[in-house]
Amino acid sequence: MAVNLQIPEKSSVFPVAGIEIGIAEAGIRKANRKDLTVFRLAPGTAVAGVFTQNRFRAAPVQVCEANLASGSEIRALVVNTGNANAGTGAPGLKATHDTCEALAKLLGLSAHQILPFSTGVILEPLPVDRLVAGLPAAIGNLAPDNWFDAAYGIMTTDTLPKISSRRVDINGHTVTITGISKGAGMIKPNMATMLGYLATDAGIAPALLKEVASDLANQSFNRITVDGDTSTNDSFIVMATGQCGLSVDSREHPAYAALYQALAEAALELAQKIVRDAEGATKFMTIQVEGAGNTDEALKVAYAVAHSPLVKTAFYASDPNLGRILAAIGYAGIADLDVGGVNLWLGDVLVASNGQRHPDYIEADGQRIMKDAEIKVRIALGRGNATETVYTCDFSHDYVSINADYRS
Amino acid sequence: MAVNLQIPEKSSVFPVAGIEIGIAEAGIRKANRKDLTVFRLAPGTAVAGVFTQNRFRAAPVQVCEANLASGSEIRALVVNTGNANAGTGAPGLKATHDTCEALAKLLGLSAHQILPFSTGVILEPLPVDRLVAGLPAAIGNLAPDNWFDAAYGIMTTDTLPKISSRRVDINGHTVTITGISKGAGMIKPNMATMLGYLATDAGIAPALLKEVASDLANQSFNRITVDGDTSTNDSFIVMATGQCGLSVDSREHPAYAALYQALAEAALELAQKIVRDAEGATKFMTIQVEGAGNTDEALKVAYAVAHSPLVKTAFYASDPNLGRILAAIGYAGIADLDVGGVNLWLGDVLVASNGQRHPDYIEADGQRIMKDAEIKVRIALGRGNATETVYTCDFSHDYVSINADYRS
Repeated sequence: MAVNLQIPEKSSVFPVAGIEIGIAEAGIRKANRKDLTVFRLAPGTAVAGVFTQNRFRAAPVQVCEANLASGSEIRALVVNTGNANAGTGAPGLKATHDTCEALAKLLGLSAHQILPFSTGVILEPLPVDRLVAGLPAAIGNLAPDNWFDAAYGIMTTDTLPKISSRRVDINGHTVTITGISKGAGMIKPNMATMLGYLATDAGIAPALLKEVASDLANQSFNRITVDGDTSTNDSFIVMATGQCGLSVDSREHPAYAALYQALAEAALELAQKIVRDAEGATKFMTIQVEGAGNTDEALKVAYAVAHSPLVKTAFYASDPNLGRILAAIGYAGIADLDVGGVNLWLGDVLVASNGQRHPDYIEADGQRIMKDAEIKVRIALGRGNATETVYTCDFSHDYVSINADYRS
Repeated sequence: MAVNLQIPEKSSVFPVAGIEIGIAEAGIRKANRKDLTVFRLAPGTAVAGVFTQNRFRAAPVQVCEANLASGSEIRALVVNTGNANAGTGAPGLKATHDTCEALAKLLGLSAHQILPFSTGVILEPLPVDRLVAGLPAAIGNLAPDNWFDAAYGIMTTDTLPKISSRRVDINGHTVTITGISKGAGMIKPNMATMLGYLATDAGIAPALLKEVASDLANQSFNRITVDGDTSTNDSFIVMATGQCGLSVDSREHPAYAALYQALAEAALELAQKIVRDAEGATKFMTIQVEGAGNTDEALKVAYAVAHSPLVKTAFYASDPNLGRILAAIGYAGIADLDVGGVNLWLGDVLVASNGQRHPDYIEADGQRIMKDAEIKVRIALGRGNATETVYTCDFSHDYVSINADYRS
């Protein structure tokens, strides 16, 4: 029951010149399921990544970081579902290295040129033999127009695929940006977890792409929350093939702003789609905090509201329960917060001013806003100029049902 | 459907010499409900309190803090349910002051000698006239043996009263310790929230009692969590009348350790009873973190596990979902945590060692522990000698139902 999650027509998902994708059934956890995806990148493609901050980093995350740091040109990605290869120790690391070795041999590359990703059940050994046995079929399937199918191929307990694709004209060049993501909570019932792949046929210099990937993540995948849990496998990869003729090597380049903007819109769309498909979600909530003293303050308040089970259940019930939002602001951790300066809006309705219920506020107005499937909460702290926005969903009976289901 | 919450026989709830309690129906929110409780304290009683850290502190909390700081001898407490007098601004403060003035006049005291408490709906004006009109009836009801009834009188959406009472022999004196608490989540659906009153007929010097109250709270009410939300009204009060003949003026006093221990057991019982009666709780969980580098680290990990909706729903489902617990440890915020040093037990079963599933662990053993209504999670970090314990409950369909119910 995803909230306003649009799936584009297959014909409107544009291939990205320089990238081919192949999908196969390797039977990693269950038979007859597309559970193996390979991306092959043309020479000259710049690649950067952002990974989970969880200390229990899965084996593929560790290998991704090492291979990116090695300075080798990344030429392929391999993604399996069904098993996250997390909490698996030295045997897990070996399984990931074996995967990279096998794919490298098949593609005529070195293992350091591969980025591996795993998502699925954690604390169980990766069936690396089945994975490796599936690689030839994935390679046989390699084609530029497989993004749509790959969005399905990387799903675990997602109910819908997440795809973003656009073409924009920048400085006389037609630039294509296409991406896919998966994840339906920060951690699924034993499923781990969020993956995002974003590609463009514009060129971006490797050092700049690293910064761009970090900036993009901070305004998209790092601004969504479902249940406050962050997984062991979260990964976000940006690829720039440079095949459309436009190449950007610094923030001062005349095309940089437009290119970044287009990438940012795609990343945000992919991130928001994860929230829209979150476990049990019935409402999509935007929490905007403004007037904070700094970014950290703004995020503390936004996440306190976004994580509060009491706020989230109130939204599920379409109950404009102001007290719960104000209480969350109050305990967000700003020690010297003057609550007399706090204003709160639901949609366009000013519900609290100066830390109290606004005199003109009537519950019917709050109720009207709360009935929408898309709700904006705007909080003004009156302390400074920092603004941050996070995206989350409500907390429903289905969330409990889904997460209380025994692992199947 | 509280978890193993024992209600003592009325006859085994001991009065505390020097304290009388009176209960009345003031019709504050609903008619025919005991919603007003007055404590009268004999001269010479030492009183100390610990209050919410929420920046939206309710009017009565502000007045309690001011009156305790004034140095006046506290001689009475007044508690109303039905309205929290929170988020009510200057009129709310005036209502609380008016309450104290009225009770002071009736008891021949000054207003600074009163501690006021309100719990119930927030952001609505306190009907102070009805409260004040009910005071004579409460005073007419004053009696030493009303603790049992007072435990009912301070309930809001609690399903059961929370009472702890004991007599202990300390240095030849029979010391009585009796207390009551209320709260069924950190914030109830618009109900605010946790109150605790603990009294002894031992004497404790005021300066020492202030430290004792803080220590007690840190090991009891500050170690419980239901949903991570802290309310605008949380208050914990300790009263020492000195009427049993034993008086303690320093931590070096030969009776101090035994007296503190008895008070700590009572405070912990009252705090745990709040968790046992938490909204929708079906399991009572003890999260013990040991081997932490310091207290802050231990608490970060314990609360990350205790607050994780994924961990809490897994416990609801009796699912020994190790991955969710390990993931919560991993994102608790210890930046240099070596997960290879982490061990994890469910009850007496070692489920993970060195950051991985323990080789001898079989799921049937975890399952056996998870079926109990009382479950201990023990986490060893292997970093140092700090140990902390927090108490929480599972997350059930009923939690969502209760909190999604429109305010009634």
